[in-house]
Amino acid sequence: MKAAVGNEVRDIKAVWFEDGKVVMIDQRRLPHELVLTRFDDYMDVREAIRNMTTRGAPSIGATAAYAMCLAALKGCDLEKAAADVQSARPTANDLFYAVRYMLDKLSGGADPVAAADGYARLTIEKCEAIGRYGAELIEDGMRLMTHCNAGALATVDVGTALAPMRFAHAQGKRFFVYASETRPRLQGMQLTAWELGQEGIDHAIIPDGASAYYMSKGVDMIIVGADRIARNGDFANKIGTMDKAIAAKHFGIPFYVAAPVSTFDFATATGADIVIEQRPEEEVTEVAGIRIAPRGSKALNPSFDVTPAGLVTGFITEKGILKPEEIGRVMG
Amino acid sequence: MKAAVGNEVRDIKAVWFEDGKVVMIDQRRLPHELVLTRFDDYMDVREAIRNMTTRGAPSIGATAAYAMCLAALKGCDLEKAAADVQSARPTANDLFYAVRYMLDKLSGGADPVAAADGYARLTIEKCEAIGRYGAELIEDGMRLMTHCNAGALATVDVGTALAPMRFAHAQGKRFFVYASETRPRLQGMQLTAWELGQEGIDHAIIPDGASAYYMSKGVDMIIVGADRIARNGDFANKIGTMDKAIAAKHFGIPFYVAAPVSTFDFATATGADIVIEQRPEEEVTEVAGIRIAPRGSKALNPSFDVTPAGLVTGFITEKGILKPEEIGRVMG
Repeated sequence: MKAAVGNEVRDIKAVWFEDGKVVMIDQRRLPHELVLTRFDDYMDVREAIRNMTTRGAPSIGATAAYAMCLAALKGCDLEKAAADVQSARPTANDLFYAVRYMLDKLSGGADPVAAADGYARLTIEKCEAIGRYGAELIEDGMRLMTHCNAGALATVDVGTALAPMRFAHAQGKRFFVYASETRPRLQGMQLTAWELGQEGIDHAIIPDGASAYYMSKGVDMIIVGADRIARNGDFANKIGTMDKAIAAKHFGIPFYVAAPVSTFDFATATGADIVIEQRPEEEVTEVAGIRIAPRGSKALNPSFDVTPAGLVTGFITEKGILKPEEIGRVMG
Repeated sequence: MKAAVGNEVRDIKAVWFEDGKVVMIDQRRLPHELVLTRFDDYMDVREAIRNMTTRGAPSIGATAAYAMCLAALKGCDLEKAAADVQSARPTANDLFYAVRYMLDKLSGGADPVAAADGYARLTIEKCEAIGRYGAELIEDGMRLMTHCNAGALATVDVGTALAPMRFAHAQGKRFFVYASETRPRLQGMQLTAWELGQEGIDHAIIPDGASAYYMSKGVDMIIVGADRIARNGDFANKIGTMDKAIAAKHFGIPFYVAAPVSTFDFATATGADIVIEQRPEEEVTEVAGIRIAPRGSKALNPSFDVTPAGLVTGFITEKGILKPEEIGRVMG
């Protein structure tokens, strides 16, 4: 992804390995400053996943792979490391997928850095394929909408929901993106709008509750990411996704989910079996450590919702665009 | 409404007239502190409407009546005052209704204070009737949802959407309220949760985007207010209302609009004719004067959306509960 590092525009990633350390963008500091943090202990990388220094399912996967890489380089007990890393967050399937991938490679004698770099490179290549397929859906003059951040920050590089936009923009298509701010953590405002701005893609931030309003005025397509997709096509994504999918159905707007096949969890039959992480209420009731809610009022903070497959027009994957009933085609 | 003023719980209103001045709660300071501000110039009261020191359609109406009262007491040109006050905000029908009410009373030789007090008292009596009708819909153990603040703060006293909850609570019914925070200005978090807390009604704040999630888990009824209702039942209310109405339809949840008959604008045929106020983007991109959005990204900030009549189960008015097709019954 393009990013202004100091006065220089560089091409960087959300996470990579350099000089024996895992380097990542501290996404909690964006959009105000671009801070790169370095870790050489896998438990610190686990904490960076838990506290959302890095976030987004595919970036979490690659970060977990690099955590396992550090554990292997230091000769840690890999079974214990796998359990530790997998417990960092409960919803992203990529976390489990990446840890199993690394255990498999390491047990086969692979070099830890080459294995983790390979995992990250595979992630990026999948995003590039998603971008190529998805860009075919975008026409000149379209108004698109997205939610949260399923961009390069969330996927090591390129993005899932933002990949078709990056590719269409590179093809010279002109379009406009509504980025809903995504309370409580504002990933839409602070990460997606930041990425779109760095790429020069025309966009505006809207409050989450303005989604139906702008759909009623004319939105041509909605593209979101996914944290986990069940076998029947129900999928978990950032809270607020289902509200948009329901409104899109109401207005007859195509609603696409962009995600690599690794996000499909074929062991999970339907969305009812997906565990939803409940996060601390302070994310809702405080801003920058200052309480904004009345004393004595509590808040609820579910991190994800589960959108039923029936509201999905298609899944944009690295193997092509699938209708919910075609998921079986990519079942491993 | 009950409110802790210092160490004492008092019964106060959103706006009233005392010692030659208009007194109002500065709602921008809630929930952190209860500040009462006093004005003796109608243009300052106009500014208090414009800058949202007071807000909510019926409170705006009563405040406009008191502004006209000040203009009359000082011998100002009433036609000019009427035009000034009516231009404070574009969407609330009560603003126009109250100014016309005062012009009519004043031209008939009424005492300005008695006329404005009478307008405010009528507003409260209507809310009490809304509370009595609406409380019949609330059953023990229900989970309710509301949006923005259609409470006592918005209606001089008692509230519209919150009136049925106040009356049901006084009748000893036990129920739970999801109050969506209502970005960008957080009236749900900062005003509705504050009012519910002062009354001792069990509630939790949720992000706006968590509405469909909690509906999917079980919500029994949604009650919102309205800023303007067209003749066909389409209605304008705080941005984010339409998202909830669409999701309520999807889940089969009854969706009620609580508003006095004065909110109906029979001169407006459908929602397409309602002007939507676009507010400054800084309300979205800044918190407490600090920019939280990326530099260079713009934001859109429509203050209201227009929900189609077809999504409304009923209008709870002071003349009873009306289906959209029964609106003609209360047409003046």
